[in-house]
Amino acid sequence: MPTRRLPVRRVHALLFDVFGTVVDWRGSILRECRALGRKKRISADWEAFTDAWRAGYKPAMARVRAGELPWMTIDQLHRMILDALLARYGIDNLTEEEIDHLNRVWHRLDPWPDARRGLALLKRRYVIATLSNGNVGLLVNMAKHGRLPWDAVLSAELFRHYKPDPEAYLGAAAMLGVEPADVMMVAAHKDDLRAAQACGLATAFVRRPREKGPKVRLDVAPEPTFDVNARDFVDLAKRLAG
Amino acid sequence: MPTRRLPVRRVHALLFDVFGTVVDWRGSILRECRALGRKKRISADWEAFTDAWRAGYKPAMARVRAGELPWMTIDQLHRMILDALLARYGIDNLTEEEIDHLNRVWHRLDPWPDARRGLALLKRRYVIATLSNGNVGLLVNMAKHGRLPWDAVLSAELFRHYKPDPEAYLGAAAMLGVEPADVMMVAAHKDDLRAAQACGLATAFVRRPREKGPKVRLDVAPEPTFDVNARDFVDLAKRLAG
Repeated sequence: MPTRRLPVRRVHALLFDVFGTVVDWRGSILRECRALGRKKRISADWEAFTDAWRAGYKPAMARVRAGELPWMTIDQLHRMILDALLARYGIDNLTEEEIDHLNRVWHRLDPWPDARRGLALLKRRYVIATLSNGNVGLLVNMAKHGRLPWDAVLSAELFRHYKPDPEAYLGAAAMLGVEPADVMMVAAHKDDLRAAQACGLATAFVRRPREKGPKVRLDVAPEPTFDVNARDFVDLAKRLAG
Repeated sequence: MPTRRLPVRRVHALLFDVFGTVVDWRGSILRECRALGRKKRISADWEAFTDAWRAGYKPAMARVRAGELPWMTIDQLHRMILDALLARYGIDNLTEEEIDHLNRVWHRLDPWPDARRGLALLKRRYVIATLSNGNVGLLVNMAKHGRLPWDAVLSAELFRHYKPDPEAYLGAAAMLGVEPADVMMVAAHKDDLRAAQACGLATAFVRRPREKGPKVRLDVAPEPTFDVNARDFVDLAKRLAG
């Protein structure tokens, strides 16, 4: 099915996926887990631990989307997965305070090296906002941590529908007071962009080949169905200005 | 009834009322109305017009709060009031596009002279967010217009409860992931602060003696029940640092 390319000129706001697109969740969590392991004398395969934590997220969200679980924020889902992982790894020497702090590592993820500069460039011309499945509190703390200059922090939490439910994309456009075609979804994940496209949003794919670490080869090939394909956020700013 | 003063040290986030507290709605609207009047050869008492537009806002919100009207955004309420005013003033030479543009003057309000600098100072130490009855789209456009450096744009719209309903104050604290006492409401309006205080928030009163123009004397006396009383946002930053 050929996809109609949207006129990029009419774009008013850019909505950014966050985990993996703006911030390097894997590198950031790995660093904190390794430091915690040294401090608490826990030896574990922290790469596998980190990957398992992230891997638990989609099935947990799917259960919320299907109505099997009541609405829960990502903080709550992360904690549910973390508790199970700590049990599976036999890690039993962390206090409640330490577990809560570890769970909030998702609030302290570092941006990819180009992110802050690219966002500053894009902000000159567009409204730049998150559209993440992360809850608002998490995203606000992360922006503070990484000095990300969002104009607005939008989240699936506001619509009580996780991406890729259409309510999230359509809700974000409506909340900004514009039509879906006035908004461009920016993501490193093609499924997120396809869902946005189905709702009438413009789309920009950004390559993040190292999102899942150096060993996993991701599909980062440009696709002509997306309105823009960019190497990073600085390149995206250049392409949108061109 | 004596009010317990909250420990200001634990404050994590400052929530700002916007119309009148951050921006000079009256001066901004008056300038645009006068320019429109010159352009379209409309003579009217624009001061009275502006004051009537603003005066229509509380009764309209009260009707939403009471359930007489369905949920409507401030953009929609402003338009409803504006349509009635244009009819009352016999102004009939504006196109739909011009009326819509005029209605969005609320997106283009200028900040008080101290606002941007004070917010930049406060942002170094606190999460700074709006908590306005204005809708998210309006607040985002206004921040862009006035270069207001919000960490988050929170609005009564997110909770479908206008201030002073407790849901707005409690919802904002919950959305930031903190307790009500970790949040300080900042406003030039004592009724807003009293409602926030009743929900357990800390409070800061900021004097805006010219909000209603040079002829209206407002009650801007400091009150010991508020945790902080400040002359403006720069003074607020100093007092919170002290």
